[in-house]
Amino acid sequence: MRSVAITNIGRLVTNDQSLGAGLLGELRDAALVIEGGRVAWVGSSKDAPSADHGIDAAGRSVLPGFVDSHAHLMFAGDRADEFAARMAGESYSAGGIRSTVAATRAATDAELESRLASLAAEMRSSGITTFETKSGYGLTVEDEARALEIAARHTSETTFLGAHVVPREYAENGAAGVDAYVTLVKNEMLAAATPHAKWIDVFCDRGAFDADQAREILLAGKAAGLAPRIHANQLQHGQGVQLAVELDCASADHCTHLTEADVEALAGSKTVATLLPGAEFSTRAEYPDARRLWAAGVKVAIATDCNPGSSYTTSMPFCIAVAVRDMHFTPEQAIWSATAGGAAALRRTDIGHLGLGARADLIQLAAESPIHLAYRPGVNLIRSTHLAEDFTN
Amino acid sequence: MRSVAITNIGRLVTNDQSLGAGLLGELRDAALVIEGGRVAWVGSSKDAPSADHGIDAAGRSVLPGFVDSHAHLMFAGDRADEFAARMAGESYSAGGIRSTVAATRAATDAELESRLASLAAEMRSSGITTFETKSGYGLTVEDEARALEIAARHTSETTFLGAHVVPREYAENGAAGVDAYVTLVKNEMLAAATPHAKWIDVFCDRGAFDADQAREILLAGKAAGLAPRIHANQLQHGQGVQLAVELDCASADHCTHLTEADVEALAGSKTVATLLPGAEFSTRAEYPDARRLWAAGVKVAIATDCNPGSSYTTSMPFCIAVAVRDMHFTPEQAIWSATAGGAAALRRTDIGHLGLGARADLIQLAAESPIHLAYRPGVNLIRSTHLAEDFTN
Repeated sequence: MRSVAITNIGRLVTNDQSLGAGLLGELRDAALVIEGGRVAWVGSSKDAPSADHGIDAAGRSVLPGFVDSHAHLMFAGDRADEFAARMAGESYSAGGIRSTVAATRAATDAELESRLASLAAEMRSSGITTFETKSGYGLTVEDEARALEIAARHTSETTFLGAHVVPREYAENGAAGVDAYVTLVKNEMLAAATPHAKWIDVFCDRGAFDADQAREILLAGKAAGLAPRIHANQLQHGQGVQLAVELDCASADHCTHLTEADVEALAGSKTVATLLPGAEFSTRAEYPDARRLWAAGVKVAIATDCNPGSSYTTSMPFCIAVAVRDMHFTPEQAIWSATAGGAAALRRTDIGHLGLGARADLIQLAAESPIHLAYRPGVNLIRSTHLAEDFTN
Repeated sequence: MRSVAITNIGRLVTNDQSLGAGLLGELRDAALVIEGGRVAWVGSSKDAPSADHGIDAAGRSVLPGFVDSHAHLMFAGDRADEFAARMAGESYSAGGIRSTVAATRAATDAELESRLASLAAEMRSSGITTFETKSGYGLTVEDEARALEIAARHTSETTFLGAHVVPREYAENGAAGVDAYVTLVKNEMLAAATPHAKWIDVFCDRGAFDADQAREILLAGKAAGLAPRIHANQLQHGQGVQLAVELDCASADHCTHLTEADVEALAGSKTVATLLPGAEFSTRAEYPDARRLWAAGVKVAIATDCNPGSSYTTSMPFCIAVAVRDMHFTPEQAIWSATAGGAAALRRTDIGHLGLGARADLIQLAAESPIHLAYRPGVNLIRSTHLAEDFTN
C-alpha cells in the first residue's frame, strides 16, 4: 500500500481533540502519514516515519477538506437580473424558484451535467472535498429522477427535494392542487428518485410546505430507505426544527429564526443545525446568531447553499468569513463547522477530520494559520485540494 | 504599432456613456481594438476591423481593470490572533497599528519587498491593474523613506503617510511629543519621502491626528509638490471630510460617519468619497450607506484598504459584493466605483474606463455578466487580467 508523508505542516487542523489542542485538535510543526488514502499517523514533524513519497508543506497550514452539506447544483439558467433588482430594492416579477424550474425542465441532460461539473470544479478549488446536492428544480417525476441520476455520477450525497416548492401547474389549483402534488411527491416521484438518492428533504416554510405535509413526505422517504433532512425556519419561526428533531433528521438547514424551545430541542438531539451564510448575504436577510447554538451545545455546520436564486456561491472560505463576521462564530468554530460540522450533517465519520483512519481529503492553505480563512476575506488561500484517491495512485 | 482585437465580448463595460448604455457605458456583443496598448476602437463585434492579433472572448464579459486607490502594503508581521480575539469579542492588549510598526521596522528591505510583491500578485489575480500604496508603518525618517523607495519600484501611486499614528516613542511624551512628531513629519520626514511619493495622506481621526495637525502636514506636503488625500471620518464624526474639500484632496477615505454638511461639501467638490468595505467587514463596524452619496451626486470609489490590522483583503470582487450587500450600492454603481471611481480618486483619466485612448488595462470575467461579481460572492470570476503593456509585445 502506497504511503505518503506530508511534513513541515505549520499548523495542522485534525478536528480530533485527542491528537491536538483546542476545538480544532491543532498541532504545530506537524506531519501526517497517509496509507491507502487514509490517515495512518499524525504527530510532530521531526518524528515522522518514512514513507514512499514525501510532500513538504513548508510551514503552511493543512486542514480537512471542507464538507458542503447543503447545495442545489442541478439547475439551468441564471437570475443575475433578479439579484440586481433585489439589491436595488426593486421588485422583480419574473423571479423565484419557478423561473429556475422552467429553465431546468427545458435544459438537456448534457447542459445540466455540464453546469454541475463546472460548479463542482469551483467547489474543489475552494477546498470542498465532499458536497451534497439536491434535486428540486425539476418537480416532475421525470425531471426529478434525471436530476438525481446525473448528480449521483458526481457525488454519493444526493438528496431528493421534490418538495422544494409546489410547481405552478399544481399551485394554480389551490389547496386541492397542493394536496395532489404532495401525493405525487410521496408516491411516483419518490419511487423514481429513490434509486439515485441517499437523502430526502422538504422545504418546510412559508410559501412552501407546512409541517404536516413535510412529515408525510419525510416519513414516506424514510419508509423507502432515504434518510431525512429538512429546510427549516429560514423565512419565519415555524415547526420545521421541531419536526427535524422528531424525525431524527441529520440536519435542520437554515435555522435563521429559532425560538429558545427550538435551540433546546436541537441541543437534546443528534440533529445538526446547518447555517447558510450565503443565503442571508445574498438576500440581505438578518443573520442568525450562532453564539446561542454553540452555548447550548448544538452541533453546527456551515454550508454554501449554492443555488441561482439566493446564494450563488461555491466558496466555503467566503461562507466562513461571513459566518465569523455576521453570525458571530469564532474563526475556530467556523472552521470546525465547515469541516466536522458538515460531516456530522451528513452523518459521516470518515470525513471532516484528519484523525487516524479518516479519509485523507485535505487542503493545503497558502497561509501560516487557518484563521487567515476569516482574517483574509475574499482572498484565494486554497493552495491545493486533495482527495484520498489522489494519494493512492 | 501592434494591434489586438478582442471580439465576441458578451457584455463590455466601457464606463463611457457616449459609447454604451447606462452608468457603465455597456455594450452587448462587442469588440475592442487595442493599438500600442491603448483603446483605438470600440463597437459591435460584427463590425470589428481586422487586427494583427485576435482574442475571442467567447461571450464573456470584459471590464476595465480595477483601480485600488487605497492600500497599505508596506508592512511586516501578521495580526491574525488580534483579529480572532476581536471577532470573539475579547480584548487583545498587544494589538494596534503600533505592533505592525515594530514588525516593519525590524524587517529587512527584502522582506518588505517580498511581501509587497506577494500582495501585488494577489491583487493582480483579483483583477486590480493599478494600485496605490502608502507608507505609515515605519514612522521614522529612514523607515518611511525606505518603504516609499521600495513601493515606487512597483507602482507610481505612492503615498507618504508618516502621519498614520504617533509612534510610541513620541506618544509617551504627551502633547509635547505629538507636536514634536508633527514637526518631524512635515520637515525631515517629508523631505526624505518626497522623492519617492506622489501623494501625502494623514489619518485624521480619534486617536490619530486632529484637523489642525492634518492641515499643517497636508499643506507642507502640497508645498513640497505632493498631492493631498486623507483618511477621514472612519471612527467618528469629525472635520476630516471638510478639510479634504478645503484642501481639494483627491479623495476622502473611509467616510463611515458623515453629516449632511459633509455630504453636501463632497457633492460640491472634486473630492471623491472612497469607501472601504473591507474595513467595516473586518472590524465588525457599521457600514456607511452609499445611497445618500449617490443621491447627492458625490463621486464614490471603492478600495480594498488592504492592511494587516483592519482589512487584510486584496480582493476587489469581495469589496464589490460587500458594498452591494451592506453599503447599498447597486451592482452597477459598485463596479463603477471600483474602476472609474478609483481612477477619479487618483485623478487619473487614462485608467478606469475603456473609452478611446484609455490604457488597455482590462479584465476578462469567467461570467456572462459583470453583475456576477456581486451575484456570486467569494467565487473567483477573474479569468484573466491584462495590463496595457501586455498588448504591445
